[in-house]
Amino acid sequence: MKQRLLTPGPSPVPEETLLELAKPVFYHRSAQFRQILGEVLEDLKYVYCTRNTIAPLTASGTGGMEAAVANCLAPGSKAIVAVAGKFGERWRSIAKTFGVEVVSVTVPYGQAVQPEQIEQALRQHPDAAAVCATLSETSTGIRHDIRAFGDIVSRTNALYMVDGISGLGVAECRVDDWHIDICVTGSQKALMLPPGLAFVSISDKAWQRIDQNAPTRVFYFDLRKYRDNLKNNDTPFTPAHTLVKALRVSLKMLRAEGIENVWARHARMAAACRAGVQALGLELFAAQPIDGLTVVNTPEGVDGVALVSKLEKQYGIRIAGGQDPLKGKIFRIAHMGYIDQFDVLAALSALEMVLMEMGYSLEPGTSVAAAQKVLAEQVRKG
Amino acid sequence: MKQRLLTPGPSPVPEETLLELAKPVFYHRSAQFRQILGEVLEDLKYVYCTRNTIAPLTASGTGGMEAAVANCLAPGSKAIVAVAGKFGERWRSIAKTFGVEVVSVTVPYGQAVQPEQIEQALRQHPDAAAVCATLSETSTGIRHDIRAFGDIVSRTNALYMVDGISGLGVAECRVDDWHIDICVTGSQKALMLPPGLAFVSISDKAWQRIDQNAPTRVFYFDLRKYRDNLKNNDTPFTPAHTLVKALRVSLKMLRAEGIENVWARHARMAAACRAGVQALGLELFAAQPIDGLTVVNTPEGVDGVALVSKLEKQYGIRIAGGQDPLKGKIFRIAHMGYIDQFDVLAALSALEMVLMEMGYSLEPGTSVAAAQKVLAEQVRKG
Repeated sequence: MKQRLLTPGPSPVPEETLLELAKPVFYHRSAQFRQILGEVLEDLKYVYCTRNTIAPLTASGTGGMEAAVANCLAPGSKAIVAVAGKFGERWRSIAKTFGVEVVSVTVPYGQAVQPEQIEQALRQHPDAAAVCATLSETSTGIRHDIRAFGDIVSRTNALYMVDGISGLGVAECRVDDWHIDICVTGSQKALMLPPGLAFVSISDKAWQRIDQNAPTRVFYFDLRKYRDNLKNNDTPFTPAHTLVKALRVSLKMLRAEGIENVWARHARMAAACRAGVQALGLELFAAQPIDGLTVVNTPEGVDGVALVSKLEKQYGIRIAGGQDPLKGKIFRIAHMGYIDQFDVLAALSALEMVLMEMGYSLEPGTSVAAAQKVLAEQVRKG
Repeated sequence: MKQRLLTPGPSPVPEETLLELAKPVFYHRSAQFRQILGEVLEDLKYVYCTRNTIAPLTASGTGGMEAAVANCLAPGSKAIVAVAGKFGERWRSIAKTFGVEVVSVTVPYGQAVQPEQIEQALRQHPDAAAVCATLSETSTGIRHDIRAFGDIVSRTNALYMVDGISGLGVAECRVDDWHIDICVTGSQKALMLPPGLAFVSISDKAWQRIDQNAPTRVFYFDLRKYRDNLKNNDTPFTPAHTLVKALRVSLKMLRAEGIENVWARHARMAAACRAGVQALGLELFAAQPIDGLTVVNTPEGVDGVALVSKLEKQYGIRIAGGQDPLKGKIFRIAHMGYIDQFDVLAALSALEMVLMEMGYSLEPGTSVAAAQKVLAEQVRKG
């Protein structure tokens, strides 16, 4: 059976990029690799909309978040953390591990922290050394208003640190214009690569803080080592260099498409998917949804875990269920990276069939027709 | 021009393993991945000669070394470090970063620390919490007597922590029989995979220390998180799971060959390479060489940097030069992993031609004939 991967990371990888990974291994301390890394970092700056340094780490995205905290925040300093789900909680856990006092701005799962809440927290804690936020809270499907947060934080001395792991390259995120001092992303989402690389952009304001701290608590994630080596387009430790070389292929695709078009493509897929599930009478879980995935409440009387399993076993459609307290209560259909509009249609088609089988009442075609109407709008318009 | 990679990491990857990397990406929170990770860890235990837990980290080998230090050694504790080159120095730097007092047992580059030196250091520092050593000091090409060190350390309370990054799967290393509490390796050497994964084996003695320490200074490298997740053959953070899947292919090859045969193969290549360069009147740099690479003194009157460059540009033979203070003074021919005996012959052939061109006096065929005599011994014997 043909398999379709619609999980919010790892997401599918273009065939041309996969083929790059099958090429012979080369030496990383070479002019060849320095050339490749230089190109990749330039193209990443385009995706990030930044002129800041980008450090390439061989690690999961969480390693990038740890690098941000360990380098920028001294023990005993204070961080305001926007917590709307599992990944906001991760900022909090990492900060606590590194001895940072955390002020949590928490909302219930499914909601997004609002700019006024950040403003208020900063007013109450003018000594905050950082504000940490999540662009795409993949556990619940919400999007934070990263731009509005940035306007607020930029008027203070706090660093603005954003987890863009599953959001960068999905939704508009302009690191420089939006005053983002640290932006972390991972390779296995919108960048269309397997997991293994994390990237961290670092503003001048962040570098000043890092140089003041002179962090002595990290070795592998010491960003100053990366800065030194990047002068020669090199890395301090052996990088996952075949992934870097393959990333060049995926980034060229994003660059050829144009980043605004990439964002628009994700917005269109998201609108189609939302229209499709809502046409079935299903409800969205996320109050303020991100365009990389659609999170849906499991309807009453339907077993959410079985639904996800049936989609895979019977139709080859792999979506994600809810995690931890949300297990069975929601399901998550990703549409990011190399997932396209027709994959979304396939997911809706299979969803209709599985829901019918599970006794949920619906008229076949309802969701795919609703999604198709959204997709077809681009034809009428253009 | 046909390219041959004879660098001591990254080393070449078998074609079948490369093809595995070109397969479609799958979901890592799945029965499929748990099955793969379980198999890979079993096969790794075979290569490690251990029943200990092996934690799979998405990182360079240095990340594995950091995990070992940060989890096992409390700040203010003391570690004896065998320093014979750049990678012994790395143990030292990481330990210092984590507030560990370091007792260095240092020998000049090209020499190996002797067991008596470790014994003496332990006598002088009975409070040492660990002894850190390097199986293959790739910067100089020496091998430490890891077995003898282990016999000594096992009679004390100190943990025995071994960097096996470029040595495991090259030379005999029996983690359980040799009392190795922590053994770190990387994917891009004898395991025949691109870089991106590090592995850390952890003995019961080491786990006791970790649980006592309850390390609070690491998040991404917190080995307890790995232990918890490994109960279900899972990882705490998104792993470089396509690399794990490809590693299965390479490990099956090692297992089919048999680990003793793998070690013998490396020993034969090493003997052939050494015989070849010595037949040209060249001198080995390493007093007690490891079988994964041959390190040669650049002869007088020859520019060592140019030699390495000419081998690559004129003959497609990529070897490594010396690093830092050894730059130009030595060159390093690797024979580990998916480099075979005929690649070694090719390197010697090209070396002869480049040396002749650079004015070094030799009789063509001397080195390849000497190497061939060693290789042919297996025929007479068998």
